[in-house]
Amino acid sequence: MSPNRLEAFSDGVFAIAATLLILNVVEPSGPLDQGLLHIWPSYVAYAVSFVTIGVIWINHHMVVAQIARVDRLFLLVNVIFLMLIAFIPFPTHLLAEHITSEGAQAAALSYGITLTATAIMFNVMWQYAAQGGRLLRENASARVVKGITRSYLPGPFIYLVATIAALVSPQLSAVLYAGIALFYVLESSVFGGRA
Amino acid sequence: MSPNRLEAFSDGVFAIAATLLILNVVEPSGPLDQGLLHIWPSYVAYAVSFVTIGVIWINHHMVVAQIARVDRLFLLVNVIFLMLIAFIPFPTHLLAEHITSEGAQAAALSYGITLTATAIMFNVMWQYAAQGGRLLRENASARVVKGITRSYLPGPFIYLVATIAALVSPQLSAVLYAGIALFYVLESSVFGGRA
Amino acid sequence: MSPNRLEAFSDGVFAIAATLLILNVVEPSGPLDQGLLHIWPSYVAYAVSFVTIGVIWINHHMVVAQIARVDRLFLLVNVIFLMLIAFIPFPTHLLAEHITSEGAQAAALSYGITLTATAIMFNVMWQYAAQGGRLLRENASARVVKGITRSYLPGPFIYLVATIAALVSPQLSAVLYAGIALFYVLESSVFGGRA
Amino acid sequence: MSPNRLEAFSDGVFAIAATLLILNVVEPSGPLDQGLLHIWPSYVAYAVSFVTIGVIWINHHMVVAQIARVDRLFLLVNVIFLMLIAFIPFPTHLLAEHITSEGAQAAALSYGITLTATAIMFNVMWQYAAQGGRLLRENASARVVKGITRSYLPGPFIYLVATIAALVSPQLSAVLYAGIALFYVLESSVFGGRA
Repeated sequence: MSPNRLEAFSDGVFAIAATLLILNVVEPSGPLDQGLLHIWPSYVAYAVSFVTIGVIWINHHMVVAQIARVDRLFLLVNVIFLMLIAFIPFPTHLLAEHITSEGAQAAALSYGITLTATAIMFNVMWQYAAQGGRLLRENASARVVKGITRSYLPGPFIYLVATIAALVSPQLSAVLYAGIALFYVLESSVFGGRA
Repeated sequence: MSPNRLEAFSDGVFAIAATLLILNVVEPSGPLDQGLLHIWPSYVAYAVSFVTIGVIWINHHMVVAQIARVDRLFLLVNVIFLMLIAFIPFPTHLLAEHITSEGAQAAALSYGITLTATAIMFNVMWQYAAQGGRLLRENASARVVKGITRSYLPGPFIYLVATIAALVSPQLSAVLYAGIALFYVLESSVFGGRA
Repeated sequence: MSPNRLEAFSDGVFAIAATLLILNVVEPSGPLDQGLLHIWPSYVAYAVSFVTIGVIWINHHMVVAQIARVDRLFLLVNVIFLMLIAFIPFPTHLLAEHITSEGAQAAALSYGITLTATAIMFNVMWQYAAQGGRLLRENASARVVKGITRSYLPGPFIYLVATIAALVSPQLSAVLYAGIALFYVLESSVFGGRA
Repeated sequence: MSPNRLEAFSDGVFAIAATLLILNVVEPSGPLDQGLLHIWPSYVAYAVSFVTIGVIWINHHMVVAQIARVDRLFLLVNVIFLMLIAFIPFPTHLLAEHITSEGAQAAALSYGITLTATAIMFNVMWQYAAQGGRLLRENASARVVKGITRSYLPGPFIYLVATIAALVSPQLSAVLYAGIALFYVLESSVFGGRA
């Protein structure tokens, strides 16, 4: 079984989860000119989550590019992974609504737990495909496979640290989430054209 | 006519129906930290329905992999099948909202009826394609086709039993729905890599 | 330019418009068991519009199967056609909400105008592609092309009649909309496997 | 890495952003027959934004048709571009709600800023791909590439002018947004079949 249809379904979930984020940006009450400035956390949350989902999509892309076939268990692991991706709009909404008020900690924790779980599941998915070359292409380069493994491993730890930071300061935690997304953007800009 | 575009449309509906489930997880009123724990049925309902839709998607995948062409009637049966898939978010919402309160029975029944109808329609779709090899690939193995037929037949009965259980206890019914989804996950984990 | 990407975008809009219809089915107020029966117009409206969009999707499928290339104007006509498809959830909501109360006429008219415009635009799209074989495949059979032209031409008139019926009775109009969808289902069942 | 999956994800976001626009068209309060006429700005806003997204999709189509490969930075630029596309439903909603009342200026500005940023990002994306032929197909015609560059450059300036017009009159600004969309439709109709 080829990974083509896996891509179609996955790209669909990625695209919808990212696009649904706009439903979290809602019209402010009161005068519109001040209100539109006042809801800036909504814009930041929208941008951070959109870019984060986009970066995960790019990485998913790279995983699928290395595999030649999928099996039932891989499809299922992928479904559970996508379940976490599609969940991201909910904590994004919470974080945007509560970052400057009560409930900031619970919101920051929910965002961090979701992203940490997503990063863990991403590693599970890749490890399952790569271990012993189970689902890899015949001509997958050992160097590239090792490189991918190395580049994904830190993800869960980075998000875990940002999550735990919410216990000290939810705002710090939110800055870290934004920083992680920004890091991925800058990394691509500075080191350029690696795919 | 090749089944390619059937897949594109079907994968779209599967992906959107699954991703829209997140709209059922809504911010709780009251303090956020307690509220987020209090709405646990929303999370369970989200996970169960997402995995259920994911498993049906995997099975749909397997059906389409066996067929070489589609005809107008098959397309229409598929549309009606997708109509049931896209309906799933509604009873999922009802079940999450009402499982611990009044209305639990009506919610559990609506969930069960939807899933039973989906399972029946899935069998109709497969039977139409497979009967006399109507739409099958030339080289479709008789053994595989029989195996698929056998593995899909119990679906309607299993969901019917879980639906009827709602007449005794809606909570039992909900546990059965979750159990069916969990069974599919475990089955894939234990028996592994069959696709 | 090949019509592949046209299909991807079109299938996306078809799938999303159909799946968004479920957002029109909302939890009833009051006791759930009676309420779920009481909102039966929502279910009918959901089913009729889903099947209608599905049938239009099948027909769009058949058009694209006949064409070899697309030009900028065809893409634009297709965008305007999809704009009407994506509009369908709105009058569907109106019809489901108002069919048994005041506002039934306005709702039935809005549904009919939308579907009539969609049917007209579908013919415009097909005529543009087919006239003088402008965008058709080299080997498109003249007989098939004529058959398609003939089968699409009545669409606008049928929907126009059902729309005008709303001036006499909105309920009659709604029955006609459902009847048209049912006709397409039965036609495929009775005359079977033509694609 | 081929641009296929980039297309799948992009087409998904385009299709969803366009289709979500219908959620901005909401049932009016009061008698339905008058109400449905009264919300005409919703219909216009829906049509203008749908066609605008459709035209950008067609242009995106033309860019991808010229490129042979994508790199990580291009994927990221594309993600940020899509982030702006997916944002369009929000200012569309604001414009439809406020064009005839207070807040019209803020709404028209937010719409214009979004579209100007989208047009800038589109040029950044194309320049990155085209500069020195970085990602272009071997056989990309220099004349076509220059033509594309020339046709995209005015976009940001046109939208900037329409945005600044909102400082004088938000209604004028809205008319200009509609005029730009209409221009693209007419241009394709008059000069016809260029793709």
